[in-house]
Amino acid sequence: MAEPLIIVNLKAYAEGMGEGAGIIAAAAEEIGEESGVAIGVAPAYTDLHPIAMHYAVPVYAQHIDGVAPGAYTGHVTAEQVRAAGAFGTLINHSERRLTLAAIEASCAAARKSDLQTVICTNNAATTAAAAALSPDYVAIEPPELIGSGISVSKADPGIIERSVLAVKNVNPGVRVLTGAGISTGECVRIALELGTDGVLLASGVVKAKDPAAVLRDLVSLI
Amino acid sequence: MAEPLIIVNLKAYAEGMGEGAGIIAAAAEEIGEESGVAIGVAPAYTDLHPIAMHYAVPVYAQHIDGVAPGAYTGHVTAEQVRAAGAFGTLINHSERRLTLAAIEASCAAARKSDLQTVICTNNAATTAAAAALSPDYVAIEPPELIGSGISVSKADPGIIERSVLAVKNVNPGVRVLTGAGISTGECVRIALELGTDGVLLASGVVKAKDPAAVLRDLVSLI
Amino acid sequence: MAEPLIIVNLKAYAEGMGEGAGIIAAAAEEIGEESGVAIGVAPAYTDLHPIAMHYAVPVYAQHIDGVAPGAYTGHVTAEQVRAAGAFGTLINHSERRLTLAAIEASCAAARKSDLQTVICTNNAATTAAAAALSPDYVAIEPPELIGSGISVSKADPGIIERSVLAVKNVNPGVRVLTGAGISTGECVRIALELGTDGVLLASGVVKAKDPAAVLRDLVSLI
Amino acid sequence: MAEPLIIVNLKAYAEGMGEGAGIIAAAAEEIGEESGVAIGVAPAYTDLHPIAMHYAVPVYAQHIDGVAPGAYTGHVTAEQVRAAGAFGTLINHSERRLTLAAIEASCAAARKSDLQTVICTNNAATTAAAAALSPDYVAIEPPELIGSGISVSKADPGIIERSVLAVKNVNPGVRVLTGAGISTGECVRIALELGTDGVLLASGVVKAKDPAAVLRDLVSLI
Repeated sequence: MAEPLIIVNLKAYAEGMGEGAGIIAAAAEEIGEESGVAIGVAPAYTDLHPIAMHYAVPVYAQHIDGVAPGAYTGHVTAEQVRAAGAFGTLINHSERRLTLAAIEASCAAARKSDLQTVICTNNAATTAAAAALSPDYVAIEPPELIGSGISVSKADPGIIERSVLAVKNVNPGVRVLTGAGISTGECVRIALELGTDGVLLASGVVKAKDPAAVLRDLVSLI
Repeated sequence: MAEPLIIVNLKAYAEGMGEGAGIIAAAAEEIGEESGVAIGVAPAYTDLHPIAMHYAVPVYAQHIDGVAPGAYTGHVTAEQVRAAGAFGTLINHSERRLTLAAIEASCAAARKSDLQTVICTNNAATTAAAAALSPDYVAIEPPELIGSGISVSKADPGIIERSVLAVKNVNPGVRVLTGAGISTGECVRIALELGTDGVLLASGVVKAKDPAAVLRDLVSLI
Repeated sequence: MAEPLIIVNLKAYAEGMGEGAGIIAAAAEEIGEESGVAIGVAPAYTDLHPIAMHYAVPVYAQHIDGVAPGAYTGHVTAEQVRAAGAFGTLINHSERRLTLAAIEASCAAARKSDLQTVICTNNAATTAAAAALSPDYVAIEPPELIGSGISVSKADPGIIERSVLAVKNVNPGVRVLTGAGISTGECVRIALELGTDGVLLASGVVKAKDPAAVLRDLVSLI
Repeated sequence: MAEPLIIVNLKAYAEGMGEGAGIIAAAAEEIGEESGVAIGVAPAYTDLHPIAMHYAVPVYAQHIDGVAPGAYTGHVTAEQVRAAGAFGTLINHSERRLTLAAIEASCAAARKSDLQTVICTNNAATTAAAAALSPDYVAIEPPELIGSGISVSKADPGIIERSVLAVKNVNPGVRVLTGAGISTGECVRIALELGTDGVLLASGVVKAKDPAAVLRDLVSLI
């Protein structure tokens, strides 16, 4: 197994913007150093540059469009987020779905700009499909767990296990993240036991009064 | 190899609507019987029922939405096209791209309604991804060949070969169609030689003065 | 005021498909003749032709794409639905939203095929914008009422009144439908009192055990 | 007439990113001061903050999503671009089309964050519709002129005149920009003579060897 990875998705939350993004990135840096666990953050596009410049954490874009530089008003290119200091990018998050052709184009564009790729998926079948595109990670977000507050440990863990197995069959070099149902260190422990290489989470950290405390709990049983 | 399959996509062509759809379906029936090659047609939704009722050919929808019956105004469900007499459906055609999650949902919905599934893709990587979803067929439409009039035999055949190989690696039970660059029997012969199980084509038949003559040529070297 | 119009949207409901569509269309025909009120139905694309052929009711498509006949796989053209017998079409229903450019193109295409146009909108501002496109009708669907079971009479009627006023200011020839919150004759009476020219409704009729009884109630206070 | 406005859309051009964005913004600042004409720039999201901080020019986002802060991964909110220093935003550019409901929501969100709004449209009818939403500006981009190199002066000027007239009829307080076909001072002069209040352009400035020289020419006949 690879070293565990935690990615905190700041979404478009008010609490994760501007100064708030800085507080969370500082917490990620602190707990990352304390624990030795890689903790990345995915801020708004407009916060990519300040966060990447000021904090020693891997910074992810929340989305990129798989287009080359050119006449694409309002699009986000791999070159833009790379120039802003991004280390990687989410692709096809459940709140920003893409066509299959666009997912593949985004992966290819990210690779060309040396961005780590994390494709989000919703079940074992789409996880297998995403793995066939050879991203660095696939993050499974079971729809019934997204933003539900239900722990992946309480829900049917089968979807995670089947997804891990599907990736092994299709493209064993691809790593897997548990992308929903994570709020405590116990959830992270279970996510790793189910065979995934880390977690992608959002509100549990972003909306916390003390993000550092939540992150410290998240890494506590790794 | 499976028996070769030819699917004629009538798109929204004026020549392939209403009476025109009937002429093409009649030609498909005639040449199919003559040659023993399965020749299907994919008409407009509004023509599905009359074509399925009057002609002994496999009829395909051009698209379905992967939703269950319900509050989906303007959507096309597997149940609707099945009830209209469809035998199968195209999914994710280059002119009707879907998100990865929607492709998977459409496949699942089609399967539940006993519809054959043909997922369209644009390169070897997306073909591999589509194969992971276990459709009956993947149809590769290299973008540079779509509607170009360039024969697949004149173009770089590598994309077809790599796609066939990718499917074999990911899910060998899935069959493959060459989805662009087909206008003559020679193109069909090459498509089969490259390891695909048939072809998906459109304007070459739909806009022909004599669709039966074109279809007779298409099957002539099988 | 124009003669009141009632449009029953069958959506993709299982109860409104095939035989079910016929039962509802028969009820619309019966109650329409009884009452003198125009009652239209908007079935699935695949049911447009049989419904238009067998029942003396105005038949509407649930959506059209504003494209000319051509290479538009999986699209629905004005020509197709017109050839199938449609009298008009919904455009931009809340479950099938379109870009502004596509709404305009759909209106233009519908007009060219002599289809009555009903653009759906979500508030007074978008109603004003839709009216500027000169459709026959705009149908306001306040999001808080859609499928809620809440009667337009119980909800804030201001959104309907402001929409009617906005249409009068921008393009007074455009008629207005109340597009949500309708389940009884009392709702219809209020919709007309608020200045709209009729109603667009769905589940209240489609999912009824006795659609004719519901329709008879709907027209009872006109 | 309002003071003329020139907006330079940097799109996702390689030449308009990072350092390139700075060169163009510096030129806009210089020529704006020289001429007294307001010259704004619309850079990539990732460049909004540095450009707004370092140059005394009105900075526009190329697009915003009309959503409130929240769980909207990969979206761009009015709050984000305002916090980054934006003065306004393009909405519904031809390369980033939105549904009518989303255009209205984006306008409302922009207004709430005190952002100037520029809705892009493609013909007189959609311009009238956009004007009904009460943005600050509508920018008409006739599709046949976009990126064509054809001057608005050589093309049929009727579309611009009909658009200006449509806005006057629907909502006379809304100002209008000519959004395509602009490359020289002569084009700008004609755009103003046709009754518009300025221009929106892109490649003519962004891809120029000497953006300041092009801008100086653009304002020369105002």
